[in-house]
Amino acid sequence: MYLAGVDLGGTNTKIGVLDENGEIIKSTSIKTLSSNGPWKTLERIWAAIKKMLQEKNIDEDDLQGIGLGIPGPVVDNSVVSSFANFPWDDNIDIADMMEKITGKKTKVDNDVNVIALGEAVYGAAKGYKISVTVALGTGIGGGIYIDGKVLSGATGSGGEVGHMKLVRDGKLCGCGQKGCFEAYASATGLVREAISRLYINKNNLLYKSIGGKVENLEAKHIFDAALEGDSFSIDLVDYEAEHLAMGLGNIISIINPEIVVLGGGVAMAGDFLLDKVREKLPEYAYSEAVRNIIIKTGNLGNDAGIKGAAALLLEK
Amino acid sequence: MYLAGVDLGGTNTKIGVLDENGEIIKSTSIKTLSSNGPWKTLERIWAAIKKMLQEKNIDEDDLQGIGLGIPGPVVDNSVVSSFANFPWDDNIDIADMMEKITGKKTKVDNDVNVIALGEAVYGAAKGYKISVTVALGTGIGGGIYIDGKVLSGATGSGGEVGHMKLVRDGKLCGCGQKGCFEAYASATGLVREAISRLYINKNNLLYKSIGGKVENLEAKHIFDAALEGDSFSIDLVDYEAEHLAMGLGNIISIINPEIVVLGGGVAMAGDFLLDKVREKLPEYAYSEAVRNIIIKTGNLGNDAGIKGAAALLLEK
Repeated sequence: MYLAGVDLGGTNTKIGVLDENGEIIKSTSIKTLSSNGPWKTLERIWAAIKKMLQEKNIDEDDLQGIGLGIPGPVVDNSVVSSFANFPWDDNIDIADMMEKITGKKTKVDNDVNVIALGEAVYGAAKGYKISVTVALGTGIGGGIYIDGKVLSGATGSGGEVGHMKLVRDGKLCGCGQKGCFEAYASATGLVREAISRLYINKNNLLYKSIGGKVENLEAKHIFDAALEGDSFSIDLVDYEAEHLAMGLGNIISIINPEIVVLGGGVAMAGDFLLDKVREKLPEYAYSEAVRNIIIKTGNLGNDAGIKGAAALLLEK
Repeated sequence: MYLAGVDLGGTNTKIGVLDENGEIIKSTSIKTLSSNGPWKTLERIWAAIKKMLQEKNIDEDDLQGIGLGIPGPVVDNSVVSSFANFPWDDNIDIADMMEKITGKKTKVDNDVNVIALGEAVYGAAKGYKISVTVALGTGIGGGIYIDGKVLSGATGSGGEVGHMKLVRDGKLCGCGQKGCFEAYASATGLVREAISRLYINKNNLLYKSIGGKVENLEAKHIFDAALEGDSFSIDLVDYEAEHLAMGLGNIISIINPEIVVLGGGVAMAGDFLLDKVREKLPEYAYSEAVRNIIIKTGNLGNDAGIKGAAALLLEK
């Protein structure tokens, strides 16, 4: 038996075929071309899956089903309430469309929930019953895995940890609200804090390392300069760690998971950042819940979207 | 078929027998006398259950099982990691003890989780698939109900929402940490804020209503004075509503429940408080998650502990 996993993105769509051990035996990437509408896009995805099956001499009947990760809230593993970057209508039943096209069982979920499921079933949280995966990128997203299933929530936004408030009337967030976790601890949150500080202090390695071009600043520059001992940048990493500890601490207090998996660009800083977070966490999370908590980075990398989407078919 | 529900408290233990419709057909209260040890206490509880069955002419064989709500974190519906107010050892397998005494299937959970389960199965959240119940009393506890089951968490502290941090380095909490939801929005949190304000302003109805005896101040006095138009007390209710909105907002963003049920003394202020919370929530919770949220007070009252404990036997 085989599974297909689809990671539908604004520009490109990654598609893979997995064997029963969860290994990707074949994968490809196609342009999403969402302007042609959902039917056309899904038909082209199905054509790509069939081509891969042929190339691997797999009988179409041996494909058990298709999972899709989609940027937007998904209800009942089926209906996408709204698409983040697509000119598609609200409330489209993508699973039903895909089943009509393919004749195959199809399940859909939000792309970050799918990554969380991938890490829980095949990745860093494999073997744990309760895990939370937090993606620290341009924004902050998350997925909560409990006993074989990711929490979708009432309207498909379960696990949207990025918009918990850390500061009352705090920094403006992209969502329009203020004080969100994402406004502080995402890559964007860290960079905007750095830019604000660089405005009044240019006498540091970070400023030098970007040749004074503040518009080019990325989170990676800050971690690199901090690793070289730049105290200005070390302070910024502490800022990141402090807010990360507060946000993760709240998640840990409320959910009491066994493990928290971190993904996205910020997590690539690795133990240099995570050790600071681990040190600060006991101040922020309920003692019973934080005592044995495991914090680690994801290990599926770019495959998380495909593997997690395929794993939707395995959900309880 | 019948179920027994037990609400084990520090001083008194409430015990009830429920019929298949979830109605309490007989209930009683006995002294817990925990100093005699767990075996003795559980044996006395079993004796009380058998007595009620006899009085109702119910055959012991028709009792399907026993559920117990206990003040402390519970792992696997069985082992109590530590007892909040009892001189009993850590990590006692209470379910196993009770099964040995009674020969009946027994399930155990934390007392607040049990209340959440009761409200979800028989009470204010009946009919909803995802609900969160928050108990606003001396402290703040909570329980998260998802698809037929309350979230226990890795170490039995799932739903301990009272210790999420609302303010970095904020007010000292009873747990030893700072800035906890509970330190602001519990009855205790409201009263200590009131006391702090009364220290510098005694020219208000609230001060008069307690005859200047600040040591007697309770949350109820504040709500009562606010309802009579005392602006000092109305400000305090706004303080309560603001922190309640921030805490509940975070829970709503992370879990995306259909309904939040509020219990405990503070919730008795009813719509006077809840309308303010509903008004403030859209500033604090992720828009997708808060749009159709229902906020209401629990409706099981003192029966929540017994009914929820019995409902443990019905969990998926």
